[in-house]
Amino acid sequence: MTTPPALSEGATHMLIELWGAKNLDDPAHAEIAMRKAIRAARATLLHLHVHQFCPGHGVSAIALLAESHLTLHTWPERSYAAADVFVCGDSDPANAVPVLVDAFQPERSDVRRFRRGVSNKPTE
Amino acid sequence: MTTPPALSEGATHMLIELWGAKNLDDPAHAEIAMRKAIRAARATLLHLHVHQFCPGHGVSAIALLAESHLTLHTWPERSYAAADVFVCGDSDPANAVPVLVDAFQPERSDVRRFRRGVSNKPTE
Repeated sequence: MTTPPALSEGATHMLIELWGAKNLDDPAHAEIAMRKAIRAARATLLHLHVHQFCPGHGVSAIALLAESHLTLHTWPERSYAAADVFVCGDSDPANAVPVLVDAFQPERSDVRRFRRGVSNKPTE
Repeated sequence: MTTPPALSEGATHMLIELWGAKNLDDPAHAEIAMRKAIRAARATLLHLHVHQFCPGHGVSAIALLAESHLTLHTWPERSYAAADVFVCGDSDPANAVPVLVDAFQPERSDVRRFRRGVSNKPTE
């Protein structure tokens, strides 16, 4: 059994939107991107599941981390993907963002960042 | 293979904080609560994984839905749990909240609700 990082300094949750993105209908590509993003964030992967919807309808991937989770959902028909990075402890969630941008080549990306476990206020 | 709901009207993401909560170190309880919350939200479960950390260190659970995901992370030492409901289509994500409150009996719960796939503005 594993021990998760303590929540003493709260957790960070990043909501990441990728607009005008590419490579959104390939589960193998999504899995590689997820694994790279997890490594970049210095997080510990415990379980990863990737689901391919009907061709053209995108993929969803969820990764359970010792530090919380990383998720990805794509809508190829909208050239849009939504990713979440939620980590506590000493991870570097911001490092996951350029990995996802590199993998999905969006025309525009938007990131919202929140603290959790300490207050309800956005940090930026 | 499945077809996910269209993103035509965007998706709803709810960040749910449970403070002063109970029953946070029991993976079976967490799984039951997750399944009930998914049913209440009228979402379709595709994959569920529950992880028990060392005794006293809580559980993490991630559910991949046809409509996106439901996640739960608990920190018994802080009497705190963080849940996320992210759904597109005709689901009722708000209906998951009372189910989670009933399961974990928090002294206080806070919910933030965001639209995704259409804009970056909080809806409330």
